[in-house]
Amino acid sequence: MTIAKSNGASFLVNLPDRVDVYEVALRDGLQSEPVAVDTQGKVDLATALMDAGLSRIEVTSFVSPHRIPQLSDGEALLARLPHRSTVALSALAPNLKGLERACRTGIGEVAVLLSASEAFSQHNTNVSISGMLATLKALVPAAREKGLSVRGYLSAVWGCPYEGAVDPDRAARLAERLIELGCYEVSLGDTIGVATPIQTRALLERVLDRIPAKCIALHLHDTRGMALTNVAVALDMGIRTFDSAIGGLGGCPYAPGASGNVATEDLVYMLHGLGIETGTNLTRLCEAACLAEVLVKRRLPGRVHCSVPSERCWSDGPASARA
Amino acid sequence: MTIAKSNGASFLVNLPDRVDVYEVALRDGLQSEPVAVDTQGKVDLATALMDAGLSRIEVTSFVSPHRIPQLSDGEALLARLPHRSTVALSALAPNLKGLERACRTGIGEVAVLLSASEAFSQHNTNVSISGMLATLKALVPAAREKGLSVRGYLSAVWGCPYEGAVDPDRAARLAERLIELGCYEVSLGDTIGVATPIQTRALLERVLDRIPAKCIALHLHDTRGMALTNVAVALDMGIRTFDSAIGGLGGCPYAPGASGNVATEDLVYMLHGLGIETGTNLTRLCEAACLAEVLVKRRLPGRVHCSVPSERCWSDGPASARA
Repeated sequence: MTIAKSNGASFLVNLPDRVDVYEVALRDGLQSEPVAVDTQGKVDLATALMDAGLSRIEVTSFVSPHRIPQLSDGEALLARLPHRSTVALSALAPNLKGLERACRTGIGEVAVLLSASEAFSQHNTNVSISGMLATLKALVPAAREKGLSVRGYLSAVWGCPYEGAVDPDRAARLAERLIELGCYEVSLGDTIGVATPIQTRALLERVLDRIPAKCIALHLHDTRGMALTNVAVALDMGIRTFDSAIGGLGGCPYAPGASGNVATEDLVYMLHGLGIETGTNLTRLCEAACLAEVLVKRRLPGRVHCSVPSERCWSDGPASARA
Repeated sequence: MTIAKSNGASFLVNLPDRVDVYEVALRDGLQSEPVAVDTQGKVDLATALMDAGLSRIEVTSFVSPHRIPQLSDGEALLARLPHRSTVALSALAPNLKGLERACRTGIGEVAVLLSASEAFSQHNTNVSISGMLATLKALVPAAREKGLSVRGYLSAVWGCPYEGAVDPDRAARLAERLIELGCYEVSLGDTIGVATPIQTRALLERVLDRIPAKCIALHLHDTRGMALTNVAVALDMGIRTFDSAIGGLGGCPYAPGASGNVATEDLVYMLHGLGIETGTNLTRLCEAACLAEVLVKRRLPGRVHCSVPSERCWSDGPASARA
């Protein structure tokens, strides 16, 4: 990283050689898509993501099929996915029943959910923050006893659609609590994509007072275009793991470009441009993004895959050529 | 800016109280749109941009109407635009003929063009860099003698679609040359949106060795999603003027989201979030972006305006409501 350290500027001088990209399109991306993607489509997309070099992939959620029918095929999907020793698959297990389902598939990692906003927790899960913490107090140790790694999500960290601003000290305490409960990592979610760079820094300072950087990931939605700048701020503060979704899948498809996760290919373009290894191949990521567009039958908000000419992208009709 | 300076982090500690936003949608945005926007539509958009508080607006180009028919109504547009003492209007004048046309409209500022890439210059203007410099040696003084301010664009600074990487030392020398010729400011263009944050910093270091920060603007296309992170890097290096286009207009409309200018509303969201004044009203900017969508009859790639519910945005049909 000679280039980054050889000049006198104050920013991006603390860059790592390598960053982990945690891919969430198959879970966080597809869970809100109105177009159902069948199991074979998910297998194809997961395979394309693995072929592109992604080694941490969240593939489904063991949530009630009535709540999220898009992800009701978790067991079938995991039975058909290729197993590669270099790839760690994960699935969301929001409760003990979900954990039981996950265990039966033989998956090695589960993710659990907590909200930093009381209103968001009540609205999304009908459970208070303290109620969810009580669940996790049983769930996380149970998962670890079965040999699973457990990742924690903390959602609505920078803002909540129901209660607005979220107290950063509360968010930091809850992040620490997830680590204390046995999560190896906590992914801090800007669920509605409101965080500005200064808010990102302010929150991370509070969290870093409590837990080490290696236990922190960022899960940023790009609703207001701030995600990559926030990644840059976090890189400068020692954060080394970022969640992303191929093509920028996720959020509300009725307001295109509005609410998806930060796009994996955009994140990787920036990281590679900063001389940071990710273990991924950008061209293959763009191909995977084009496949995702075909599967969900809409243009996705990621930028970099649009700049790669491909006959496989979604244009004005399925599989039509992009000009 | 107490919040920015009170902590120990290295990034975004050198923030100004105020930044200039230079709006280019009416020129750089509309020049490549296949949908013709009539003069009244442009008047409406310009008025909305002024009402939103933008005070530097490039409204047209006095280029050959055969080359860019979308901008052939420059004289009619300027005759119908509201004149406000707080708003500086500008128009591109690529040659002496364009300057004559601009002068007859009574406009107070013109912009001139130079490319940092020999291949880009030849391809776009049929003139070499040295040939264009010879033109500017006559054009810039002629404009100043008539009392006009002259702004210089340097295009393809970080990369060229025809010759690839561009020598940053050549770009820095040409930026200095534009100032020497009499431009009050040079706008450094990432015309194809390839610059990574480290490349932005490296180029700016070279330019800042030659001309002061107050004479430098950045004109970033968001082709690969890097624009706002590059703005953050530039802010940290003392740059205080940024070009943008409402809605992210610009670039190739056949690859949505691919090549537009950085969206004014996204830029302003970040700047305001950093505690930096721009003199603009974000809600009104979003309304202007929605108007731009209706005028060009397509969704625009800007993010922030999509997160503002509006019945005036372009959805699946003209003026239909956004979900």
